[in-house]
Amino acid sequence: MQSLQVLPGVGPKSAQRMALALLQRHREGAARLSEDLMAAVEGIRECDRCRNLTESELCGICADARRDVSVVCVVESPADIFAIEQAGGYTGQYFVLHGRLSPIDGIGPAELKLERLLARVRLDETREVIVATNATVEGEATAHYIRELVGDHVSSVSRIAQGMPVGGELEYADGGTILHALQGRRQLA
Amino acid sequence: MQSLQVLPGVGPKSAQRMALALLQRHREGAARLSEDLMAAVEGIRECDRCRNLTESELCGICADARRDVSVVCVVESPADIFAIEQAGGYTGQYFVLHGRLSPIDGIGPAELKLERLLARVRLDETREVIVATNATVEGEATAHYIRELVGDHVSSVSRIAQGMPVGGELEYADGGTILHALQGRRQLA
Repeated sequence: MQSLQVLPGVGPKSAQRMALALLQRHREGAARLSEDLMAAVEGIRECDRCRNLTESELCGICADARRDVSVVCVVESPADIFAIEQAGGYTGQYFVLHGRLSPIDGIGPAELKLERLLARVRLDETREVIVATNATVEGEATAHYIRELVGDHVSSVSRIAQGMPVGGELEYADGGTILHALQGRRQLA
Repeated sequence: MQSLQVLPGVGPKSAQRMALALLQRHREGAARLSEDLMAAVEGIRECDRCRNLTESELCGICADARRDVSVVCVVESPADIFAIEQAGGYTGQYFVLHGRLSPIDGIGPAELKLERLLARVRLDETREVIVATNATVEGEATAHYIRELVGDHVSSVSRIAQGMPVGGELEYADGGTILHALQGRRQLA
Protein backbone atom coordinates (compact mmCIF):
# COMPACT_ATOMS: atom_id res chain seq x y z
CA MET A 1 0.00 0.00 0.00
CA GLN A 2 2.79 2.38 0.86
CA SER A 3 4.53 1.78 -2.47
CA LEU A 4 1.35 2.47 -4.43
CA GLN A 5 1.28 5.97 -2.96
CA VAL A 6 4.15 6.91 -5.24
CA LEU A 7 1.49 7.14 -7.99
CA PRO A 8 0.22 10.69 -8.56
CA GLY A 9 -3.11 11.36 -6.89
CA VAL A 10 -3.06 8.16 -4.84
CA GLY A 11 -3.34 8.56 -1.06
CA PRO A 12 -3.65 5.97 1.72
CA LYS A 13 -7.32 5.21 0.99
CA SER A 14 -7.01 4.61 -2.74
CA ALA A 15 -3.77 2.72 -2.16
CA GLN A 16 -5.60 0.31 0.12
CA ARG A 17 -8.43 -0.13 -2.36
CA MET A 18 -5.95 -0.73 -5.19
CA ALA A 19 -3.88 -3.19 -3.20
CA LEU A 20 -6.90 -5.27 -2.22
CA ALA A 21 -8.31 -5.20 -5.74
CA LEU A 22 -5.00 -6.40 -7.20
CA LEU A 23 -4.62 -9.18 -4.63
CA GLN A 24 -8.20 -10.38 -4.65
CA ARG A 25 -9.18 -10.08 -8.30
CA HIS A 26 -6.25 -9.13 -10.52
CA ARG A 27 -3.21 -11.17 -9.51
CA GLU A 28 -2.24 -11.74 -13.13
CA GLY A 29 -2.57 -8.07 -13.93
CA ALA A 30 -0.46 -7.24 -10.89
CA ALA A 31 2.30 -9.59 -12.02
CA ARG A 32 2.22 -8.07 -15.52
CA LEU A 33 2.34 -4.57 -14.05
CA SER A 34 5.35 -5.56 -11.97
CA GLU A 35 7.22 -6.89 -14.99
CA ASP A 36 6.38 -3.91 -17.18
CA LEU A 37 7.42 -1.47 -14.49
CA MET A 38 10.78 -3.20 -14.12
CA ALA A 39 11.26 -3.35 -17.90
CA ALA A 40 10.41 0.35 -18.19
CA VAL A 41 12.72 1.36 -15.34
CA GLU A 42 15.58 -0.64 -16.77
CA GLY A 43 14.98 -0.11 -20.49
CA ILE A 44 13.77 3.47 -20.93
CA ARG A 45 16.38 6.21 -21.07
CA GLU A 46 16.89 9.69 -22.47
CA CYS A 47 17.51 10.14 -26.19
CA ASP A 48 21.16 11.09 -26.70
CA ARG A 49 20.12 13.91 -28.97
CA CYS A 50 16.90 15.46 -27.67
CA ARG A 51 16.44 13.99 -24.16
CA ASN A 52 13.01 12.57 -25.08
CA LEU A 53 12.24 9.20 -23.49
CA THR A 54 13.23 6.20 -25.62
CA GLU A 55 14.39 2.61 -25.49
CA SER A 56 17.21 3.23 -28.02
CA GLU A 57 20.10 5.65 -28.25
CA LEU A 58 17.97 7.91 -30.44
CA CYS A 59 14.23 8.43 -30.04
CA GLY A 60 11.84 7.73 -32.90
CA ILE A 61 11.62 11.40 -33.87
CA CYS A 62 15.39 12.01 -33.92
CA ALA A 63 15.89 8.78 -35.89
CA ASP A 64 13.22 9.72 -38.46
CA ALA A 65 14.98 10.97 -41.61
CA ARG A 66 11.80 12.75 -42.76
CA ARG A 67 11.91 15.21 -39.83
CA ASP A 68 13.38 18.63 -40.55
CA VAL A 69 16.64 18.89 -38.56
CA SER A 70 16.89 22.63 -39.17
CA VAL A 71 14.08 23.42 -36.70
CA VAL A 72 14.34 22.55 -32.99
CA CYS A 73 11.32 22.96 -30.72
CA VAL A 74 12.29 23.29 -27.02
CA VAL A 75 9.73 21.84 -24.57
CA GLU A 76 9.59 21.32 -20.82
CA SER A 77 8.61 17.64 -20.80
CA PRO A 78 8.05 14.58 -22.99
CA ALA A 79 4.29 15.07 -22.41
CA ASP A 80 4.55 18.30 -24.42
CA ILE A 81 5.99 16.34 -27.35
CA PHE A 82 2.97 14.03 -27.21
CA ALA A 83 0.65 17.07 -27.26
CA ILE A 84 2.41 18.74 -30.21
CA GLU A 85 2.65 15.50 -32.21
CA GLN A 86 -1.05 14.84 -31.63
CA ALA A 87 -1.88 18.34 -32.86
CA GLY A 88 -0.09 17.35 -36.08
CA GLY A 89 1.57 19.70 -38.54
CA TYR A 90 4.97 20.11 -36.83
CA THR A 91 7.72 18.45 -38.85
CA GLY A 92 10.86 19.61 -37.03
CA GLN A 93 12.73 18.07 -34.11
CA TYR A 94 12.73 18.65 -30.36
CA PHE A 95 14.82 19.28 -27.28
CA VAL A 96 13.38 18.33 -23.87
CA LEU A 97 14.45 20.33 -20.80
CA HIS A 98 12.86 18.00 -18.23
CA GLY A 99 11.89 21.07 -16.24
CA ARG A 100 12.21 24.85 -16.35
CA LEU A 101 14.55 27.37 -14.77
CA SER A 102 13.60 27.73 -11.11
CA PRO A 103 16.37 29.13 -8.91
CA ILE A 104 14.28 28.61 -5.75
CA ASP A 105 14.19 24.88 -6.44
CA GLY A 106 17.87 24.86 -7.39
CA ILE A 107 17.12 24.26 -11.08
CA GLY A 108 19.57 26.18 -13.24
CA PRO A 109 20.91 25.85 -16.80
CA ALA A 110 23.08 22.86 -15.83
CA GLU A 111 20.13 20.85 -14.50
CA LEU A 112 18.27 21.44 -17.78
CA LYS A 113 21.43 20.41 -19.68
CA LEU A 114 21.20 23.55 -21.77
CA GLU A 115 24.85 23.10 -22.80
CA ARG A 116 23.61 20.23 -24.95
CA LEU A 117 21.07 22.48 -26.65
CA LEU A 118 23.85 25.01 -27.23
CA ALA A 119 26.13 22.36 -28.71
CA ARG A 120 23.33 21.36 -31.04
CA VAL A 121 22.47 24.84 -32.31
CA ARG A 122 26.18 25.44 -33.01
CA LEU A 123 25.91 22.83 -35.75
CA ASP A 124 25.34 24.45 -39.13
CA GLU A 125 22.18 22.50 -39.78
CA THR A 126 20.12 24.25 -37.08
CA ARG A 127 18.31 27.30 -38.47
CA GLU A 128 15.43 28.02 -36.08
CA VAL A 129 14.73 27.41 -32.40
CA ILE A 130 11.06 27.53 -31.36
CA VAL A 131 10.73 27.92 -27.59
CA ALA A 132 7.54 26.09 -26.55
CA THR A 133 7.94 26.23 -22.77
CA ASN A 134 4.66 26.77 -20.93
CA ALA A 135 3.02 30.20 -20.75
CA THR A 136 3.82 30.44 -17.02
CA VAL A 137 6.19 32.86 -15.28
CA GLU A 138 8.96 30.26 -15.09
CA GLY A 139 8.32 29.11 -18.67
CA GLU A 140 8.69 32.72 -19.89
CA ALA A 141 11.90 33.24 -17.90
CA THR A 142 13.29 30.02 -19.36
CA ALA A 143 12.35 31.21 -22.86
CA HIS A 144 14.28 34.45 -22.44
CA TYR A 145 17.30 32.68 -21.03
CA ILE A 146 17.33 30.38 -24.07
CA ARG A 147 16.98 33.41 -26.35
CA GLU A 148 20.17 34.90 -24.86
CA LEU A 149 21.98 31.56 -24.96
CA VAL A 150 21.34 30.52 -28.56
CA GLY A 151 20.44 33.81 -30.27
CA ASP A 152 23.86 34.30 -31.88
CA HIS A 153 24.01 30.81 -33.33
CA VAL A 154 20.74 30.50 -35.27
CA SER A 155 18.93 32.79 -37.66
CA SER A 156 15.68 32.77 -35.67
CA VAL A 157 14.57 32.19 -32.08
CA SER A 158 10.79 32.34 -31.80
CA ARG A 159 8.20 31.88 -29.08
CA ILE A 160 4.86 30.12 -29.58
CA ALA A 161 1.97 32.57 -29.71
CA GLN A 162 -0.03 33.64 -26.70
CA GLY A 163 -3.66 34.60 -27.14
CA MET A 164 -7.14 33.19 -27.13
CA PRO A 165 -7.32 29.37 -27.03
CA VAL A 166 -9.47 27.79 -29.76
CA GLY A 167 -13.13 28.08 -28.76
CA GLY A 168 -12.22 30.68 -26.14
CA GLU A 169 -14.60 33.51 -25.34
CA LEU A 170 -13.32 36.96 -24.44
CA GLU A 171 -15.88 37.31 -21.68
CA TYR A 172 -14.26 34.48 -19.73
CA ALA A 173 -10.60 35.14 -20.60
CA ASP A 174 -8.19 36.58 -18.01
CA GLY A 175 -6.76 40.05 -18.50
CA GLY A 176 -3.26 38.86 -19.33
CA THR A 177 -4.54 36.63 -22.12
CA ILE A 178 -6.64 39.47 -23.56
CA LEU A 179 -3.62 41.82 -23.52
CA HIS A 180 -1.48 39.22 -25.32
CA ALA A 181 -4.28 38.63 -27.84
CA LEU A 182 -4.54 42.36 -28.61
CA GLN A 183 -0.77 42.95 -28.73
CA GLY A 184 -0.22 39.89 -30.90
CA ARG A 185 -3.00 40.68 -33.36
CA ARG A 186 -2.28 39.67 -36.94
CA GLN A 187 -3.39 41.08 -40.27
CA LEU A 188 -6.53 39.39 -41.54
CA ALA A 189 -5.50 38.34 -45.05
CA MET B 1 -41.66 32.03 -9.36
CA GLN B 2 -42.32 31.66 -13.05
CA SER B 3 -40.99 35.14 -13.80
CA LEU B 4 -37.77 34.49 -11.89
CA GLN B 5 -36.99 31.65 -14.27
CA VAL B 6 -36.12 34.22 -16.93
CA LEU B 7 -32.81 34.61 -15.05
CA PRO B 8 -29.99 32.51 -16.52
CA GLY B 9 -29.36 29.30 -14.59
CA VAL B 10 -32.54 29.56 -12.54
CA GLY B 11 -34.97 26.65 -12.74
CA PRO B 12 -38.19 25.89 -10.83
CA LYS B 13 -36.40 24.89 -7.62
CA SER B 14 -34.13 27.91 -7.31
CA ALA B 15 -36.99 30.16 -8.39
CA GLN B 16 -39.07 28.87 -5.50
CA ARG B 17 -36.20 29.35 -3.03
CA MET B 18 -35.59 32.88 -4.33
CA ALA B 19 -39.25 33.84 -4.22
CA LEU B 20 -39.69 32.69 -0.64
CA ALA B 21 -36.44 34.34 0.49
CA LEU B 22 -37.50 37.64 -1.06
CA LEU B 23 -40.98 37.52 0.46
CA GLN B 24 -39.98 36.30 3.90
CA ARG B 25 -36.72 38.12 4.56
CA HIS B 26 -35.94 40.67 1.85
CA ARG B 27 -39.09 42.58 0.98
CA GLU B 28 -37.21 45.88 0.82
CA GLY B 29 -34.59 44.37 -1.43
CA ALA B 30 -37.30 42.93 -3.66
CA ALA B 31 -38.93 46.36 -4.01
CA ARG B 32 -35.56 47.93 -4.87
CA LEU B 33 -34.88 45.18 -7.40
CA SER B 34 -38.25 45.83 -9.00
CA GLU B 35 -37.58 49.56 -9.34
CA ASP B 36 -34.05 49.09 -10.69
CA LEU B 37 -35.22 46.54 -13.23
CA MET B 38 -37.88 48.91 -14.52
CA ALA B 39 -35.44 51.82 -14.61
CA ALA B 40 -32.91 49.69 -16.50
CA VAL B 41 -35.47 48.42 -18.98
CA GLU B 42 -36.75 51.93 -19.65
CA GLY B 43 -33.49 53.86 -19.42
CA ILE B 44 -30.78 51.70 -20.95
CA ARG B 45 -30.36 51.80 -24.71
CA GLU B 46 -27.73 51.24 -27.37
CA CYS B 47 -25.02 53.84 -27.92
CA ASP B 48 -25.73 55.63 -31.23
CA ARG B 49 -22.12 55.18 -32.25
CA CYS B 50 -20.87 51.79 -31.00
CA ARG B 51 -24.02 49.92 -29.87
CA ASN B 52 -22.61 49.46 -26.34
CA LEU B 53 -25.25 49.72 -23.58
CA THR B 54 -25.66 53.20 -22.14
CA GLU B 55 -28.15 55.59 -20.57
CA SER B 56 -27.18 58.45 -22.91
CA GLU B 57 -26.99 58.90 -26.66
CA LEU B 58 -23.27 58.12 -26.53
CA CYS B 59 -21.69 55.60 -24.15
CA GLY B 60 -18.92 56.65 -21.76
CA ILE B 61 -16.20 55.31 -24.04
CA CYS B 62 -17.46 57.00 -27.22
CA ALA B 63 -17.92 60.26 -25.29
CA ASP B 64 -14.40 60.10 -23.81
CA ALA B 65 -12.19 62.50 -25.77
CA ARG B 66 -9.04 60.70 -24.59
CA ARG B 67 -9.92 57.52 -26.50
CA ASP B 68 -8.24 57.02 -29.86
CA VAL B 69 -10.96 57.27 -32.53
CA SER B 70 -8.66 55.87 -35.23
CA VAL B 71 -8.85 52.32 -33.83
CA VAL B 72 -12.16 50.40 -33.65
CA CYS B 73 -12.30 47.05 -31.83
CA VAL B 74 -15.26 44.90 -32.97
CA VAL B 75 -16.72 42.63 -30.25
CA GLU B 76 -19.69 40.30 -30.00
CA SER B 77 -21.21 41.64 -26.80
CA PRO B 78 -20.96 44.41 -24.19
CA ALA B 79 -19.54 41.80 -21.78
CA ASP B 80 -16.47 41.63 -24.06
CA ILE B 81 -15.96 45.38 -23.64
CA PHE B 82 -15.99 44.89 -19.86
CA ALA B 83 -13.37 42.15 -20.20
CA ILE B 84 -11.07 44.21 -22.46
CA GLU B 85 -11.41 47.34 -20.34
CA GLN B 86 -10.59 45.35 -17.21
CA ALA B 87 -7.51 43.93 -18.90
CA GLY B 88 -6.45 47.57 -19.38
CA GLY B 89 -4.11 48.90 -22.02
CA TYR B 90 -6.58 49.32 -24.90
CA THR B 91 -7.16 52.98 -25.67
CA GLY B 92 -9.23 52.79 -28.87
CA GLN B 93 -12.99 52.61 -29.35
CA TYR B 94 -15.44 49.77 -29.96
CA PHE B 95 -18.26 48.46 -32.11
CA VAL B 96 -20.65 45.89 -30.58
CA LEU B 97 -22.29 43.35 -32.90
CA HIS B 98 -24.74 41.97 -30.30
CA GLY B 99 -24.18 38.52 -31.79
CA ARG B 100 -22.23 36.83 -34.57
CA LEU B 101 -23.07 35.70 -38.08
CA SER B 102 -25.16 32.54 -37.83
CA PRO B 103 -27.24 31.81 -40.95
CA ILE B 104 -28.92 28.82 -39.23
CA ASP B 105 -30.35 31.16 -36.60
CA GLY B 106 -31.24 33.75 -39.22
CA ILE B 107 -28.53 36.15 -38.07
CA GLY B 108 -26.98 37.93 -41.04
CA PRO B 109 -25.12 41.20 -41.62
CA ALA B 110 -28.32 43.23 -41.24
CA GLU B 111 -29.09 41.81 -37.79
CA LEU B 112 -25.57 42.75 -36.63
CA LYS B 113 -26.08 46.23 -38.15
CA LEU B 114 -22.79 45.89 -39.99
CA GLU B 115 -23.84 48.73 -42.30
CA ARG B 116 -23.26 51.04 -39.33
CA LEU B 117 -19.73 49.69 -38.88
CA LEU B 118 -19.17 50.24 -42.61
CA ALA B 119 -20.45 53.83 -42.39
CA ARG B 120 -18.06 54.43 -39.53
CA VAL B 121 -14.93 53.04 -41.19
CA ARG B 122 -15.69 55.16 -44.26
CA LEU B 123 -14.92 58.21 -42.15
CA ASP B 124 -11.36 59.35 -42.66
CA GLU B 125 -10.55 59.14 -38.97
CA THR B 126 -10.73 55.32 -38.81
CA ARG B 127 -7.32 53.75 -39.45
CA GLU B 128 -7.46 50.24 -37.98
CA VAL B 129 -10.19 47.70 -37.27
CA ILE B 130 -9.32 45.01 -34.69
CA VAL B 131 -11.74 42.08 -34.93
CA ALA B 132 -12.09 40.64 -31.42
CA THR B 133 -14.96 38.23 -32.01
CA ASN B 134 -14.62 34.96 -30.07
CA ALA B 135 -12.24 32.22 -31.20
CA THR B 136 -15.19 29.99 -32.16
CA VAL B 137 -16.23 28.81 -35.63
CA GLU B 138 -18.92 31.49 -35.91
CA GLY B 139 -16.61 34.15 -34.47
CA GLU B 140 -13.99 33.32 -37.12
CA ALA B 141 -16.57 33.40 -39.94
CA THR B 142 -17.77 36.77 -38.70
CA ALA B 143 -14.18 38.04 -38.62
CA HIS B 144 -13.62 37.09 -42.25
CA TYR B 145 -16.87 38.67 -43.35
CA ILE B 146 -15.87 41.91 -41.63
CA ARG B 147 -12.45 41.70 -43.31
CA GLU B 148 -14.14 41.62 -46.73
CA LEU B 149 -16.58 44.35 -45.81
CA VAL B 150 -14.22 46.98 -44.44
CA GLY B 151 -10.84 45.98 -45.90
CA ASP B 152 -10.88 48.61 -48.64
CA HIS B 153 -11.69 51.48 -46.30
CA VAL B 154 -9.04 51.22 -43.59
CA SER B 155 -5.30 50.71 -43.69
CA SER B 156 -5.40 47.66 -41.40
CA VAL B 157 -7.85 44.95 -40.40
CA SER B 158 -6.35 42.69 -37.73
CA ARG B 159 -7.48 39.74 -35.68
CA ILE B 160 -6.61 39.20 -32.00
CA ALA B 161 -3.98 36.51 -31.53
CA GLN B 162 -4.78 32.87 -30.97
CA GLY B 163 -2.40 30.79 -28.91
CA MET B 164 -1.66 29.65 -25.39
CA PRO B 165 -3.66 31.45 -22.68
CA VAL B 166 -1.55 32.97 -19.88
CA GLY B 167 -0.58 30.22 -17.45
CA GLY B 168 -1.51 27.59 -20.03
CA GLU B 169 0.40 24.33 -20.22
CA LEU B 170 1.00 22.61 -23.55
CA GLU B 171 0.25 19.22 -22.06
CA TYR B 172 -3.36 20.22 -21.46
CA ALA B 173 -3.94 22.40 -24.55
CA ASP B 174 -6.11 21.20 -27.42
CA GLY B 175 -4.54 20.48 -30.80
CA GLY B 176 -6.06 23.50 -32.52
CA THR B 177 -4.63 25.87 -29.93
CA ILE B 178 -1.19 24.26 -30.22
CA LEU B 179 -1.27 24.62 -34.01
CA HIS B 180 -2.22 28.30 -33.74
CA ALA B 181 0.50 28.83 -31.13
CA LEU B 182 3.13 27.29 -33.42
CA GLN B 183 1.92 29.04 -36.57
CA GLY B 184 1.67 32.39 -34.82
CA ARG B 185 5.08 32.18 -33.15
CA ARG B 186 6.87 35.51 -32.80
CA GLN B 187 10.54 36.43 -32.74
CA LEU B 188 11.95 36.52 -29.22
CA ALA B 189 13.53 39.95 -29.08
